[in-house]
Amino acid sequence: MIVRDFNELKNTDKAVANERWTSVRMLLADDKMNFSFHITTLEAGSEHEFHYKHHFESVYCMSGTGRIIELDNDNKTHEIKPGVMYALNLHDRHRLIADEGADLVMACCFNPPVTGKEVHREDGSYAPADELEKA
Amino acid sequence: MIVRDFNELKNTDKAVANERWTSVRMLLADDKMNFSFHITTLEAGSEHEFHYKHHFESVYCMSGTGRIIELDNDNKTHEIKPGVMYALNLHDRHRLIADEGADLVMACCFNPPVTGKEVHREDGSYAPADELEKA
Repeated sequence: MIVRDFNELKNTDKAVANERWTSVRMLLADDKMNFSFHITTLEAGSEHEFHYKHHFESVYCMSGTGRIIELDNDNKTHEIKPGVMYALNLHDRHRLIADEGADLVMACCFNPPVTGKEVHREDGSYAPADELEKA
Repeated sequence: MIVRDFNELKNTDKAVANERWTSVRMLLADDKMNFSFHITTLEAGSEHEFHYKHHFESVYCMSGTGRIIELDNDNKTHEIKPGVMYALNLHDRHRLIADEGADLVMACCFNPPVTGKEVHREDGSYAPADELEKA
């Protein structure tokens, strides 16, 4: 059994920050669970564009409010608030917006699991794991 | 993109209750994400024994407090509080205890994904998906 505490990991190298978000990697590929699990905090008032071409991701809002925009589906927009989950079953290119006033705190699952070595590329994607191995 | 709201699903057949817990299935196998995602609420003061022989599960505590006991590892006990995650990477047989005073609310990921047709068997496990298909 693996037991980990977000409040300890957030002060270690398991917390990855980039511009106006921080992601604490609670589970990564090495843990061999077949998914990874992250707690991601998006700064109040920030906007982000992501496109996980090689991963499925689900994102559950624990606190904060905002919006998600489907960039390849007429900019269809969904409200984000505690209890709302979105799942990128079509590898959907999207923009995520955190409202002013409070950070958005999200529980995120990825399959295949993130290795922890990925960086967001210019197109908002993570490389597939086999490209990382080759790199 | 799939968008679902816990506060709507909890009043539908996506909420599965059993004795003193309720699990709202936010994502199931049919959603083809390669994992399932559930919000599970364990009633304050309740105890539960589970053994997912055929699944990996991670469980992240969002609210409430309690304990998890590793039943096949000298009853080693871990405190559960908001921010703590446990991951059953060894299909660990375990007892989960919710303290009195507040329900334990947990965000759970399963691989392989739960189909929604499983029931907990006498040994605390879910059947593997291929047994369900045969049933």
